[in-house]
Formats: sequence, structure tokens, C-alpha cells
Amino acid sequence: MTPKKRPLILITNDDGIHAKGIRALIQIMQKIGDVVVMAPEEPMSGMSHSITSLIPLRARLIEKKEFYQEYACAGTPVDCVKLAQHLFFQEQKPDLVVSGINHGSNASINIIYSGTMGAALESSMNGFPSIGFSLLDYSKDADFLAAEPFILQIVEDVLRNDLPKNVCLNVNIPAVKTEEIKGIRICRQANACWVDSYENRIDPRGHNYFWLTGDFKANGITEEDDIWALDNNYISVVPVQYDFTHYECIDNLKGRLENV
Amino acid sequence: MTPKKRPLILITNDDGIHAKGIRALIQIMQKIGDVVVMAPEEPMSGMSHSITSLIPLRARLIEKKEFYQEYACAGTPVDCVKLAQHLFFQEQKPDLVVSGINHGSNASINIIYSGTMGAALESSMNGFPSIGFSLLDYSKDADFLAAEPFILQIVEDVLRNDLPKNVCLNVNIPAVKTEEIKGIRICRQANACWVDSYENRIDPRGHNYFWLTGDFKANGITEEDDIWALDNNYISVVPVQYDFTHYECIDNLKGRLENV
Repeated sequence: MTPKKRPLILITNDDGIHAKGIRALIQIMQKIGDVVVMAPEEPMSGMSHSITSLIPLRARLIEKKEFYQEYACAGTPVDCVKLAQHLFFQEQKPDLVVSGINHGSNASINIIYSGTMGAALESSMNGFPSIGFSLLDYSKDADFLAAEPFILQIVEDVLRNDLPKNVCLNVNIPAVKTEEIKGIRICRQANACWVDSYENRIDPRGHNYFWLTGDFKANGITEEDDIWALDNNYISVVPVQYDFTHYECIDNLKGRLENV
Repeated sequence: MTPKKRPLILITNDDGIHAKGIRALIQIMQKIGDVVVMAPEEPMSGMSHSITSLIPLRARLIEKKEFYQEYACAGTPVDCVKLAQHLFFQEQKPDLVVSGINHGSNASINIIYSGTMGAALESSMNGFPSIGFSLLDYSKDADFLAAEPFILQIVEDVLRNDLPKNVCLNVNIPAVKTEEIKGIRICRQANACWVDSYENRIDPRGHNYFWLTGDFKANGITEEDDIWALDNNYISVVPVQYDFTHYECIDNLKGRLENV
């Protein structure tokens, strides 16, 4: 099966419509498909799977030309997916949703805080094949195009072969030159956590405020983990789903809590 | 093993410090433990696992007396857990974190949007036994105390037996009288999604805005699912974890994408 001519691709992110990462992703995707962009007006880092329900949403047209439409949405990344679906995909579904390229890692436990991956998960919940891309580089000069051949390889594979229902991909890219990328590795989400701290400060009026800081702590990393792949200059690809059930616990808890 | 005398309990929620649901949970927990409350200043429904990192956080003391401290935090439910840990639990960890009682269901796929469950998951990531409670009633007159005996049963079980590392409980309560609750069922997260829509409106200046609406759609519900339990007047308890990896996909994707 060959990919359709000019697939319809929705692009979003969590760093906002002006971010360098989404500009690179738009540039890459325009080479292969018709593109609709719906991304947050403002940076939405750490917004996870949050939605706007207490206030209404707005969207603003930025550019519209043949094969390309771009909108900014005054909401979260997940809002962007939901609103784009409502406005543009009632009849023709997108062939692919890509989210990113995120400025910074969404490997391991970072996925749970990630708006980039929130949008990808939401897309897969709506039945759209979807991929979140992140680059492990926070610097202003980050090179979002270094991994372009690999991004195209992954995108073209998903367009050709699809993904299982309710599964999307969490793709993280090491911050190295194209020729230093060793290839792609399919991984599991590494077991890790943030050991948080806050920097306490006092404002000019004498009141306390707190800045979040923290150290990333990985546990027992093996070659199967995304963290290992990235540390070794591979692109990590984790197939991701959203059933939170811990099945192994069910029987034990049944014995303790059910009165049946 | 008997529970410690006066366990130390952190309480948070996503409906905000003034919500009726957290007031009921505080009332119940004060019967068995020393309580610290750190809850959002404002309603934070649908905030999922989001964190505040682009601006600093603030917290405000509301009440402090023997065995009880209450603070409001200008952040998300997950921020509340992180900041409470920083301020109060450096030396003595909480014996339990309870989140809720949420106004409305967090069963099935609602967990992924839920700030109540975001706080519970964050707590378990920090090594604290934690439980999210939700009542399937949005009305002003919702009776958050009807399930008190069951809430105490679950809490006392967790204090006595603990939970496996990285697991917390998602507890949902049907909106019925105490005597109509048939008992507790240990369940899996039902397969369901929201079929979203937006109501388009036009503001007085002629601009479009959009209100999120939607229909909940469950797929192939069986007696193992939380939705079934709730529909049949049981309290549903789902053990919950945060490894998003879809392990079954890994081998197939290796064959397609790895160049090793």
C-alpha cells in the first residue's frame, strides 16, 4: 500500500504558534501533505491533558492559502485538537496529527506533564493516527531540522501502515547533528521521576513566592528504555496508550475491599 | 499491623478550596488523622496533570490549629501536591494523600482530564499512598457524605495495607443514598471517549467563540468496568498507574522502524 497523495495533516504543539519547533514541523510536513495548523496563542508548557471548560474558546485565522491553513487558539494543546476537529474534520478526517516539535524532552515521566503529548493522546482518542515529536534542546539556537530524515521516515511509516487503535507515538530526538544520530529505537517509557524543589523568594511587598525547580531521577535504566536510547544518540519511539489501570493489583484489592 | 495513631493526611482537590466536596472530605479525614489541606484558590476542573512552571506559585494560609492546617495555592492540583511536599513533608512524609471529593465523575477516560486524579497520580509518583474520590453528582445539593462509611473503609484499608509503589486508587461514587450503595467493586478503566462538539456563539462585537460540549460514549462495557459498577450502584475502585507504554506494539514497530 502506498501512502495517499497529499495526506491531510493537522499540526499542533504546546510551545505556542510562534515557537521555532512548530515552524520546523510545518516546513517538513508541507513537503508531503496538505496542512492545517491549530496551535496555542501562548506557550502552554506543562499543560498535560488539560481542557478549557469553564470559559469559552476562541480561534484566530493567521494564514490561509492553497493546501495550508493556520490558526491560533486561545486554549490548551488538547483544546486545539478538539476545536480543529470540530471546525475542519467533520467530513474528512486528518490522515495524521503531529504535535511539536517540542522544545525539550518528553521522554520517560515527562509525558505525563506534556501538552505536546496531551495533544497526541487526544488525537489518538479521536481515532486519528498521531505522533508527538520532542527535541532534547532548550536553547534558542536548537536545530529542529537535524532529525528531518528520521521524522519523515516515522511519518511516512505511520501514513503507510497506520497505528493500532488508541495508540500514538512519543518520539524524542537527541540534541546532536544529523550524522551523529545512530538511528531509531522502539522503547518503553523509562521509570523515572522529578525530585522537586522550589526556590523561595520574597517579593518587594514582603510576600513569599515559589519557583519550581527539580532534578530528574531515573531508576534502573536498561537498553529497553527511552532514556537509554537518547543518552546513546538514538531517536526514541515509545508506543503510547491511555488505559491507566494497574491490572496486576486488581485481584489483591478484590480480596481486601470487595464485599461481594 | 494496625494503622498508626493519627496518620498525617494531605488533602487536595481540583474544584478549589471552597468546594463542598473538599469540605466533606476534610470533615471525614479529621476523624482519623492530622490534616494538612493545600487546595487551589480557584476551580481547576479539567486541569489534568498540568503544572505551573512559567510563573511562580503562591500559597496563602487560611487556618492553622492543633492537628489542622489549611492553605490555598494559586496553582493547579499537581502544584498543590508539589508545593505541600516542599513546605511540609521534607522530614515527615504524609501517610496518605486524598484528593476530592470531586464534583462529577472521574471514571473511565475522564481520568485523563481530571485534576483530582492528576493530584493523586503525582502523590503516588512521590511515594505517598494516594486516593482520588469523585461523586457522580454535579448538583448544588449533592450529598458528599452519603458514602462516608465506604470512604472510611477504603482509607483505613490503604493506611493498614499500603498500596504497591507507583499505584493509586481512582474511586468513583454513584449519586445515591447510603442505603442504596451496593458495595465496593475493584474495576478496570472502561473503554470510552467523549464525542466532542462546540456550541458556536457570536459575541456583541461580532466575533465567534466556542463552548465545549460533548457526549460520553462507552464501548463494550462488561462487569469488569468502572462504568458498569457505577451504573449498578457500586462504588468503583480502579488501581491506577502511569506507565503509558503500549508494550504489545513494541515488536511490530521494531520490525518497521529500527535500522539496527
